[in-house]
Amino acid sequence: MSALKKKILIVVMDGLGDRGCKELNGLTPLQATDTPNLDWFTKNGIAGTCDTVDIGIRPGSDTSHLSILGYDPLKVYTGRGPFEAAGIGLIGKHDDVAFRCNFSTCDENLNITDRRAGRIDKPDTTELIRSLKGMNINGVEIIIKEGTEHRAALILRGSGLSADVTDADSHDTGPLNLSKGRTKEAEFTANVINKFVKESYERLKDHPVNKRRIEEGFPPANIIVPRGAGSFPKIQSFPEKYNISAACVAGVGMIKGICGVCGLDVIDLPDECTGGCSSNFVTKAKAAMETLKEYDFVLMNVKAPDVCGHDGDPLLKCRVVERLDEMAGYFRENFRDDMVIVFTADHSTPCSLGDHSGDPVPITVYTPGNVMDDAVKFSESGCSHGRIGRIRGIDIVPMCMDLADRVEKFGA
Amino acid sequence: MSALKKKILIVVMDGLGDRGCKELNGLTPLQATDTPNLDWFTKNGIAGTCDTVDIGIRPGSDTSHLSILGYDPLKVYTGRGPFEAAGIGLIGKHDDVAFRCNFSTCDENLNITDRRAGRIDKPDTTELIRSLKGMNINGVEIIIKEGTEHRAALILRGSGLSADVTDADSHDTGPLNLSKGRTKEAEFTANVINKFVKESYERLKDHPVNKRRIEEGFPPANIIVPRGAGSFPKIQSFPEKYNISAACVAGVGMIKGICGVCGLDVIDLPDECTGGCSSNFVTKAKAAMETLKEYDFVLMNVKAPDVCGHDGDPLLKCRVVERLDEMAGYFRENFRDDMVIVFTADHSTPCSLGDHSGDPVPITVYTPGNVMDDAVKFSESGCSHGRIGRIRGIDIVPMCMDLADRVEKFGA
Repeated sequence: MSALKKKILIVVMDGLGDRGCKELNGLTPLQATDTPNLDWFTKNGIAGTCDTVDIGIRPGSDTSHLSILGYDPLKVYTGRGPFEAAGIGLIGKHDDVAFRCNFSTCDENLNITDRRAGRIDKPDTTELIRSLKGMNINGVEIIIKEGTEHRAALILRGSGLSADVTDADSHDTGPLNLSKGRTKEAEFTANVINKFVKESYERLKDHPVNKRRIEEGFPPANIIVPRGAGSFPKIQSFPEKYNISAACVAGVGMIKGICGVCGLDVIDLPDECTGGCSSNFVTKAKAAMETLKEYDFVLMNVKAPDVCGHDGDPLLKCRVVERLDEMAGYFRENFRDDMVIVFTADHSTPCSLGDHSGDPVPITVYTPGNVMDDAVKFSESGCSHGRIGRIRGIDIVPMCMDLADRVEKFGA
Repeated sequence: MSALKKKILIVVMDGLGDRGCKELNGLTPLQATDTPNLDWFTKNGIAGTCDTVDIGIRPGSDTSHLSILGYDPLKVYTGRGPFEAAGIGLIGKHDDVAFRCNFSTCDENLNITDRRAGRIDKPDTTELIRSLKGMNINGVEIIIKEGTEHRAALILRGSGLSADVTDADSHDTGPLNLSKGRTKEAEFTANVINKFVKESYERLKDHPVNKRRIEEGFPPANIIVPRGAGSFPKIQSFPEKYNISAACVAGVGMIKGICGVCGLDVIDLPDECTGGCSSNFVTKAKAAMETLKEYDFVLMNVKAPDVCGHDGDPLLKCRVVERLDEMAGYFRENFRDDMVIVFTADHSTPCSLGDHSGDPVPITVYTPGNVMDDAVKFSESGCSHGRIGRIRGIDIVPMCMDLADRVEKFGA
């Protein structure tokens, strides 16, 4: 096989799939919106529908992105903690247990009065975190880092740890939860977490930053409350698994974290790529095309359609779809013939539901010289006319690797 | 996710799928018949095709209904006995071995002269069964109950039992078979069965009911002949597995049995719902809608199309399809917005074959606010234009649970 190995770009439009919306006469935002560029790729490429995890499973963005990268989340996903930690640059080792944390405010009885400590942010959190470094509890190393606003991530490193513990975060104001082991084995970890929470209060309560905050009328960030325990999955890194250099272009921490855990390089983005609805999609598309000069595989995530779905706003989702189509237009104009491009979503976020659903998402794949099938419209219904049929998220990378002429022959 | 959890109704039109019929100019009964109501659901809902067990597998009604309820029959199906037993109200425990039985007529050398004892029926069978109660053979408890006409079910309960035994029923007149163990371990069970058959003759041969039958010129039911050994599967009950209350509306014993074994409540039906071609489908539909007030999941089975297929009568099957469409019209008129409805079949019963085939069956699913796809006709070919694609029977419940907004999110 002498063909040139092509590059692969997967454009994940987060939460793009939808259901029929009353406000759109029973159509989905994709069905109701003119998308000439996405349709061009559909008409000239191949199309289908995709259950990112499996039929009827409502995926999170974490489990669905793992699937899209070719990892079965039913085997490797243990919880959100490690991906959040990785999203702020704390990529742990296998067997480390990671947690998402909040800087919170509590009274002297450790009753939580503000779960987000008045949405405290850097540089206060950076300074507060410093006083928590170097801790060791019962032989377990404590690694902690601040995230955006009141968020932080925590890693426990040592022997005998388990992720099978309940949250210290009660997800409400009032008394703090005690973390508990769901198994006998996990009690040691729960005990470490409970000691850490108390120690964080001891170290933070009289911290100069908090004294200043109180003086200025802000709630002090005097306690760290962990949740979402998970251990880092033991997986073969993506570049090794597929023998391809790989990077991710994403604004949202958790997506960066998932890609980071899977061994993709995480590319820094311009500030205008926020992950929100006002994020500049074309700027992000440019960054993806730039990244594709250096790498052979790029996963790009655009968060905005998911936000519209969660907000239950089909009209805003239609506007976002229009802008996604402009982004697709940028790819069309700047297309390089040595690439395979995929447009899909990680899951549906129907506006009528305001949350993720298990409905399959549209997928279209284009590369010059592929088979043209009969699908002509990029939508939940339109893509189902294509020759991809109904596939799973873990099928996407193998399919693209083949279209990119990067797969070894099996047999003779 | 705050959405209302919807109810689910699966309408299984038994053996509805077909192949092209000469008598219908190469069309199937569904293709050849006007079905405005089934088409309405297809046009406004989503459609596809379904291999209830797997591609190319010719399912029985038992294995296909297990699949439709989300159980892999390749894992849980051991034989027809337990489902027939359950169908007449004998739901055994895991490790019990169950058999279907016939009341038969034999001579004094135990040669069968009439496999069905002149199609004997209640109340004679009820009286005869009484004399067989309380038996215990080699420490094995014998539980037996009469069914319709000459049918009965038998359960063996005790330790060391195996379902891996051949039938005592030779499926013909003439010498009785001796049941044999297919494995060394199963010889004990075969021995118990052979002793039971002989003991049934001893207890029945001079029974007053049989003396009376002989006087009246009817064949005596003087022996019980078991077949179809199977052990009750060890499965999580459907209501527990899916966290939903569930019932079944069916006329045929075996379907009731399968639903009963899976933990669905079996609803008593009016006499006009016989399971035959003359059964009143609208009355059954009313019963299903009534049941849906009390339960969140209902499986309804209509047997008639299967009967036409077995009889090789495509014109009669077209008439039955017309009446199934009237039934669909009842559902359309009495539709409740908080429900997901599924129209499908458990398998194809092509008239040209006169038996079940492995051809995939059409499926359409409708709930207000779903994605409208481009399928418009409910038939083997028409449904294949829809976005469901080609699925398996075990995918149906997970898909519906998602559309009913009853699935927990996997990940974040």
